[in-house]
Amino acid sequence: MKLLYPTSLDLDIDSLKGFAPTLHPYDVKKPIPDDLIDAEILVAWTNSPDNLSDAAKRMKNLKWIQSLAAGPNDVLNAGFDAKSIKITTGSGLHDHTVAEHTLALLLNAARRFFEMRDYQLQGKWPAHLGGPQPDRPKGRFTTLRDARVLIWGFGNIAKSLVPSLRGLGAEVKGVARSTGVRNGVEVYNEDHLKDLLPETDALVMILPGSEGTKHVLNKERLGLLPNHAWVVNVGRGTTVDEEALADALEKGEIGGAALDVFEKEPLPEDSRFWKTPNTIVSPHAAGGRPQGSEILIADNLRKFLAGQELKNVI
Amino acid sequence: MKLLYPTSLDLDIDSLKGFAPTLHPYDVKKPIPDDLIDAEILVAWTNSPDNLSDAAKRMKNLKWIQSLAAGPNDVLNAGFDAKSIKITTGSGLHDHTVAEHTLALLLNAARRFFEMRDYQLQGKWPAHLGGPQPDRPKGRFTTLRDARVLIWGFGNIAKSLVPSLRGLGAEVKGVARSTGVRNGVEVYNEDHLKDLLPETDALVMILPGSEGTKHVLNKERLGLLPNHAWVVNVGRGTTVDEEALADALEKGEIGGAALDVFEKEPLPEDSRFWKTPNTIVSPHAAGGRPQGSEILIADNLRKFLAGQELKNVI
Repeated sequence: MKLLYPTSLDLDIDSLKGFAPTLHPYDVKKPIPDDLIDAEILVAWTNSPDNLSDAAKRMKNLKWIQSLAAGPNDVLNAGFDAKSIKITTGSGLHDHTVAEHTLALLLNAARRFFEMRDYQLQGKWPAHLGGPQPDRPKGRFTTLRDARVLIWGFGNIAKSLVPSLRGLGAEVKGVARSTGVRNGVEVYNEDHLKDLLPETDALVMILPGSEGTKHVLNKERLGLLPNHAWVVNVGRGTTVDEEALADALEKGEIGGAALDVFEKEPLPEDSRFWKTPNTIVSPHAAGGRPQGSEILIADNLRKFLAGQELKNVI
Repeated sequence: MKLLYPTSLDLDIDSLKGFAPTLHPYDVKKPIPDDLIDAEILVAWTNSPDNLSDAAKRMKNLKWIQSLAAGPNDVLNAGFDAKSIKITTGSGLHDHTVAEHTLALLLNAARRFFEMRDYQLQGKWPAHLGGPQPDRPKGRFTTLRDARVLIWGFGNIAKSLVPSLRGLGAEVKGVARSTGVRNGVEVYNEDHLKDLLPETDALVMILPGSEGTKHVLNKERLGLLPNHAWVVNVGRGTTVDEEALADALEKGEIGGAALDVFEKEPLPEDSRFWKTPNTIVSPHAAGGRPQGSEILIADNLRKFLAGQELKNVI
């Protein structure tokens, strides 16, 4: 039995030894070599579309694909036989790194580093951003202290983010499909958005892309946010009506937007977000660094060999 | 007995009522009005030099000045009679807000938002900063996860910062005058810098300005840092040899510098830091927002009236 592992990241292969399958590196941007084509197990990370469609056609013994991506659309769309091949995701491997980036975006917004940079590039001291300042002024988002942060899409990334937010003094609430208290945070369903959005200083979007989440942050809901509220999106660009968001930014109807994801990536040259005021454009940089992959692969490999149910099955 | 409180910040005066002294607002940028000149107690925040030197000459009954600044050099240099007047500082009122800004600077450095901004202003997508990335690559500071953060100047701000750093996975050590374990952090004296600096990914300077701290981060010590290490300064600009730091940045001998304080502020037009690579210029924006002032004032007022030792006496 053969397991193919990608050379597109630095895996500690020693920590996968001891199981029955033999371990073989492969190049995710090239066709699978003939001598590996009979492998039962494929670990995937940043594979090229050609690599995957070729593998889908030629790997007749394949039983299980372990992707390291949280949402492995590339694997799902490559034509693998869903009846005979299990696909598992890298859900959980990106929680920490996306949470860190989200925190960084929130602080960048509150402390206005983007504006400081504009001044720096002109060799000018932004005196209005330094020196004595009003403490937590009403109608501005200037600190996470006592800030009301609403996380829409309350899964594992949110759970990883909450301790940092609370440690800095933020009041955190969540929105998800089902209501309840999770990790000590009150989580509401979307019916409550009309009451929650007007009480929000920073809205953090961590929604997956799907038909059900398309443009859920629309003009009407943006209109419910206070004028000083920031929108942070680290989920998927499709969840936001970008024209409505750009309108709200240009009209000053919201405080700003820190965006790591967009409907089209790379962000097109003619996108309004390059120029809209109080906008931070981050190039889908929150995740992309799976952490602890070996633990997930080893755990799932043991389960696979034991005939047990795998973790993160799609 | 009269207490004068400044109108330069939004104090909750109701929470100071119930003590014997009467409470009187005053304008910190104008001379003290004649009918208030007999006050025994002055609370100071962002007073003009003229206001303070006038007060020093004319307030003959003054017994106690409560500054809300952590380092009230303005009050100390105004000519008040040190024998008859107690001066207390606002130490502790700025810990949280400086810690938040320091965290923001560290994340800005690691996640390179300053570089993203440069691309955004040109309407360009910084593809190299997004998408799949190596996880915690050696020789780069890209995340606080497992990053070795050394805090030089390990007082209350550091103690406020440590939980956030550890929550994000950083390994924190401290440097201070005396060695020991504080708040669970190993703190070393400066003799250990030669061993600590080479093992540092981010050096956070939170030193006060004094003769003893002048240019303590000099060429030799900068040379001990790894080439990828960042220097963050939120203490005082005088603690860094700025020419040596600018040299190190230009030669790529360190990873970058995120500076909130400078030897001269505002940063002069001809400063090299406007243009040195990997440099974040922040306009002394970390603090300047005293928090919980009323609690300190009320506590010290009670002590003053009871003839007890005040908190934060200089």
